[in-house]
Amino acid sequence: PLAGEAPPLVVRRALGAYLYTDKGRAILDGISSWWVNLHGHSHPRLVAALQRQAETLDQVIFAGFTHAPAARLARALLSHYKGSYTRVFYSDDGSTAVEVALKLAIEYHARIGRSQTARKVLALAGGYHGDTFGAMAAAARGVFTRAFEGFLFEAHHLPFPCAKHADKAMEVLRREIKTGDVAAFIFEPRVQAAGGMRIYADQWLDEAIAFAQNKGVPCIADEVFTGFGRTGDLFACAALKHKPDLVALSKGITGGMLPLGATLCGAHVVDAFSAPGLSKAFFHGHSYTANPMACQVGVESLSLLVSPKVTSARARIAARHRACALHLKGHPRLANARAIGPLLAMEAQVPEANHYAHPIRNIAYAFFLKRDILLRPLGRTLYFLPPYVMTDDELTRVYQAIEEFGATKSFFL
Amino acid sequence: PLAGEAPPLVVRRALGAYLYTDKGRAILDGISSWWVNLHGHSHPRLVAALQRQAETLDQVIFAGFTHAPAARLARALLSHYKGSYTRVFYSDDGSTAVEVALKLAIEYHARIGRSQTARKVLALAGGYHGDTFGAMAAAARGVFTRAFEGFLFEAHHLPFPCAKHADKAMEVLRREIKTGDVAAFIFEPRVQAAGGMRIYADQWLDEAIAFAQNKGVPCIADEVFTGFGRTGDLFACAALKHKPDLVALSKGITGGMLPLGATLCGAHVVDAFSAPGLSKAFFHGHSYTANPMACQVGVESLSLLVSPKVTSARARIAARHRACALHLKGHPRLANARAIGPLLAMEAQVPEANHYAHPIRNIAYAFFLKRDILLRPLGRTLYFLPPYVMTDDELTRVYQAIEEFGATKSFFL
Repeated sequence: PLAGEAPPLVVRRALGAYLYTDKGRAILDGISSWWVNLHGHSHPRLVAALQRQAETLDQVIFAGFTHAPAARLARALLSHYKGSYTRVFYSDDGSTAVEVALKLAIEYHARIGRSQTARKVLALAGGYHGDTFGAMAAAARGVFTRAFEGFLFEAHHLPFPCAKHADKAMEVLRREIKTGDVAAFIFEPRVQAAGGMRIYADQWLDEAIAFAQNKGVPCIADEVFTGFGRTGDLFACAALKHKPDLVALSKGITGGMLPLGATLCGAHVVDAFSAPGLSKAFFHGHSYTANPMACQVGVESLSLLVSPKVTSARARIAARHRACALHLKGHPRLANARAIGPLLAMEAQVPEANHYAHPIRNIAYAFFLKRDILLRPLGRTLYFLPPYVMTDDELTRVYQAIEEFGATKSFFL
Repeated sequence: PLAGEAPPLVVRRALGAYLYTDKGRAILDGISSWWVNLHGHSHPRLVAALQRQAETLDQVIFAGFTHAPAARLARALLSHYKGSYTRVFYSDDGSTAVEVALKLAIEYHARIGRSQTARKVLALAGGYHGDTFGAMAAAARGVFTRAFEGFLFEAHHLPFPCAKHADKAMEVLRREIKTGDVAAFIFEPRVQAAGGMRIYADQWLDEAIAFAQNKGVPCIADEVFTGFGRTGDLFACAALKHKPDLVALSKGITGGMLPLGATLCGAHVVDAFSAPGLSKAFFHGHSYTANPMACQVGVESLSLLVSPKVTSARARIAARHRACALHLKGHPRLANARAIGPLLAMEAQVPEANHYAHPIRNIAYAFFLKRDILLRPLGRTLYFLPPYVMTDDELTRVYQAIEEFGATKSFFL
C-alpha cells in the first residue's frame, strides 16, 4: 500500500521458516509469506532447480515456441487433478489466472454458438479473487473495490453457505441461474481465505456446481489459496464429485519462490476454443507467460510436496492443529477455533458493535511480532498457516503465543 | 493461445541472441522474445545476480516487510526518471502495472475530494495495454476484446495522432475532456507497439498531457514496451516537457528474465493516498509483489543497460537501423521503413482490400523462421527489435533476409 502503518521491517535473508531482519531478528513466518511458501524459504532443491534453469533457458516467447519446464509442470498439475482437465493456460499471478478463467467462461458461450446475453457473474459473499478489474468485479464489494464501482461488471453475491445459510444460498443460486443472466459461477472451494478463513461444506458446493453446469453455466474454482495442500487435500477440488470447468492456481504453485499463475481447462472448454488456424483462438498472453524458471521450480516443488517426507510433515502439522483447535474449544476470547489441513483459524471475541472498528487486528499483529512470530490477522480472524517445514517445537511456540494472547483480557475490551 | 497454428518449436536452451531447439536449430531472436530481452538470454551477470539472490532471500511478504532489492530497483528507476516520480508500486506484469495505474488515477479524484462522476477512460485508437479486464477496457476494441464488450468499462478512443490526424485527435481530446466525463488519459508514448509500431510526435503528446492535466485528468504513460531503451531514449517519457502522472513499466524491467511490473507515481498522487493509518491507503497487492529475485535482476539489468558498453551497442544498432530504413526508402513492397532506437519497422505492401485477410503475416513469419530468424509481424507490419547484444554480422543477416523477403514479389499478391 502507498500508505502503511508502522515502518516496514527490512528482511535481509530468509531460510526455512525464518525471516532474518537487518537488525538481527529471526522472525518465524507463520503465514507462509502471504500463503505462498510451502517448503520454507530458499529450499535447497528449489534453489538448485532455479539456478540450473537460469543458466539453460531463462525465458522465451511462449507463442510459436514451447519448452520442457512448461510441459512438465502442466503434466504434473493435470495428473494430480486426475484427468478432470486437459490443458493448462499459464499467466503471471492469481489475479491473472482468475481473469483468464473468467474470460474463457464468458467467451465459451459464444464459442459453442449460444447467443450471449448473460452479463452477470455469480459469486459468494465475502469472496476475494484478486485486485485487477475482472477479479475485483467478481469479488465481494468492500474496501478493496468501493472506489471502482462504476468500472466493474455486474456480479451477484450469494449468501455465504455456512450451515445456517446453506439452504438460502442454494435457493438464490437456483433463482439467479434460472434468469439466464449468469455467464459464470466463481468460488473459492471449501475455504474462503481473505474473507476470514471461512469453511463451508463440499456437499453444498457439489450441489451448486451440478445445478449450474446442468443449466450451462461454467463453474470456476479459485484454488489460488486452497491449492497445494492448504486445506489438507492436495487440491480442494479433489473432494468434489462435480468438477468445476475451470480452476485458477497460483501462490503455492512455485513453492513460494516466483510469481506464476495457471488456469486448468476441462476438455469441453478446450474443444470450444479449438479449430485450425486462429479462428477460434483464445487471445490472451502475457510477455512472461510460462517463464521456464518459474515452471521448473514448480515441477520441483510439486514433486517435493507429494514426497513421503513432506506428506508426513503435512499430516503431522494437521494433527497438531486439530489438537490445538480442540484444546481451544469453549475458550472465552478465542472463538470458533477450527483446523483443516495446515490451516488453524479462530475469531477474537470482541464486542459485537466493534467488530470492524475494533483495534484487535493491529493489537494481535503487534503482539505476535513482538514475540518474533509473523501472524497477520484478517480483521478479528486470527489464523496460522505454517510452511510444511515447521517443526513441532516451532508449532508449540506459536500455539503458546496464541494462548498467551487469548489470556490477555485487556486486548478484547 | 489454446488453439495455434503450426506445432510450436521446442526450445531447449537459449544464450545471447540465440534460441536452441531440441532439433539442434539455432534461431536468431529478432524480437527479443516478445520485447522483454535486453542483454541476450542467460546473461552471466543477470544469472549470477539471480543465483545469489535465490540463496539469500527468495521471496517475502511485501506488506509490513521490505527488502534491499526492492528499494534498490525503485531508487534506480526513480533516478532515471530524474525526480518526476517519488514512489514505485510493484506488481507482476505489464497488465497489472497498467491496472494499478488505472486504479490510482480513478481513485485519485475521490482522494482529493472531488465528487467522482467521471466514468470514462480516454485512450488512443489502436492502443494495447494488456489482457486483464481493466487493461482490455482501456485498449482499442478488436479481436482481443470483442467477446467481452458487456464486461468492459467505457473508453473513448481518439484518432491515432499521426501527422495527418494530429489536429483532429487534439480536437476530440479537448472536447471529450471538457465533458467532465474523463477519469484518466492513457497512452503508449512515442510508439504504439502492438498497434503496428506506429510512431507519433512527442509534441502532440506533450500538448495533450498539458491540456488533460490542466483540467485535472490524470495521465498514464504505458511504457511497458517503450521503456528500457526501446525507442532510443532510456524511457520515451524523457522527451516530454509535461510528465505523465503515472507510468507503467514491465517487459525490459528484468532484462527479460522474470515477470515484474512497476507503476511510478508522481508526488501529488502519492500525497493523495497518504495519511496516518490505512484510512487513505491504496488497496492492491499481489502475493509475489516485489519478488526479491526479480527486483535484484532488475537492478543488475538496469546498471548494465546504462554501462558504456551497452550504451554504445544501443547506438550502434540504432545507426545500422537508420541506415537500413534509408536504404529501403522507396522500396515498392516494403513501405514506410522507419527506425527509432533499436526498433526497425515497415509495412508489407499488399492490396488495400486485403490488409487484414491477406496471408502476408504468416508468409513472413514462416519465411524468416525457415532462415532461423525469429521475426513475428503484427499483421502486415514487419519489425525487427534485437536484444542489445546482437552483433553487426547478425544485424546484416537479418537486413539481408528482409531484403530477400521484399524481393519475392509472389508473396505480396
